[in-house]
Amino acid sequence: MPQAIERVLSEPVLDQTMRLFWAKGYAQTPIEEIVAVTGFNRAAIYSRFGGKRELFLAMLARYRERITERLLEPLRTHDDGLAAIEAFFRQLSTLPELTQHSMGCLLVTTASDQANLDPEASALVADYLDELTTLMRAALGRARDQGQLDAAVDIQASADFLATHVLGLMTLSRWPAPARTLHSQVEEILHYLRGLEKN
Amino acid sequence: MPQAIERVLSEPVLDQTMRLFWAKGYAQTPIEEIVAVTGFNRAAIYSRFGGKRELFLAMLARYRERITERLLEPLRTHDDGLAAIEAFFRQLSTLPELTQHSMGCLLVTTASDQANLDPEASALVADYLDELTTLMRAALGRARDQGQLDAAVDIQASADFLATHVLGLMTLSRWPAPARTLHSQVEEILHYLRGLEKN
Repeated sequence: MPQAIERVLSEPVLDQTMRLFWAKGYAQTPIEEIVAVTGFNRAAIYSRFGGKRELFLAMLARYRERITERLLEPLRTHDDGLAAIEAFFRQLSTLPELTQHSMGCLLVTTASDQANLDPEASALVADYLDELTTLMRAALGRARDQGQLDAAVDIQASADFLATHVLGLMTLSRWPAPARTLHSQVEEILHYLRGLEKN
Repeated sequence: MPQAIERVLSEPVLDQTMRLFWAKGYAQTPIEEIVAVTGFNRAAIYSRFGGKRELFLAMLARYRERITERLLEPLRTHDDGLAAIEAFFRQLSTLPELTQHSMGCLLVTTASDQANLDPEASALVADYLDELTTLMRAALGRARDQGQLDAAVDIQASADFLATHVLGLMTLSRWPAPARTLHSQVEEILHYLRGLEKN
């Protein structure tokens, strides 16, 4: 009977395990490296945690809770809807510098890697995408209520567009993309938002 | 000494092998399925082609040549730069319906999956991203020369933004994303382009 992973591994080891999957994705993370990081041998990883897949799903949930929840903060906290979206993208563009690695986002990597393959991973990713789109729509809704947006703006379509751009930025930042490319995109998001504003 | 894969496998088998990697990505494609599709056993895959990785790199190059070159056509052929970009995104939004699968793009999946891991796969992806961005920049350049764009538009930043959105759309379309979401994004791209136009 597998034990709750969080009760067995210490916080630093949980973080290291999460970063291992974050850097390489599920399929490309060798079990040998999981053994090295956790200090449990293969047999113990299966008997104690239920296996590599179960460990991955737990780390994906941890990533969602620890990393993306913090990144989504600006969308939640700014009363000014357009400023919220700007602050969110500005923070995103500095992510490779913050993490000191071109690791993108574990959820987006999983979307590309596992979406069609593992229903539980797929559900975790879908849930995150839903939340991202919902927060974008709420921020656009606040902007509309504050009279900032043109009446013709389709809030849902615009939220889908912005969330999709996040997928693109995260794919690009898994890559040694020049910081210039990421930073200049914040300006383009602002062009897009200005295109939605009331004249 | 591995033989040229194209001389050994027939066109339909090459296409099936390419679609196998397209659907699952490199790491998640089991060697057993490659054996089933190609009719060569494991040992023959290694002795004749050099192995799974070499077969994948050849299929990635084939995908680039057969699939993406055709998708990039509208960017090349339209004299009207903004119409070229619109036609390209319109076609992209129908991709899941065209391919009858949520398979996204093999190059974008590889960008997420392999970018930091395999230098040859990484070079093929970088080359494609360069071409996509260059074609976007050229289309925007034509629009500017035709007096369609505001003088303040940064053509390079705008091309980077559009190319990044392609990465996002392709990640989303690896997913059973509702067609509505993909189609409505063409309208948002048009909003963005209108934001670049001369008043």
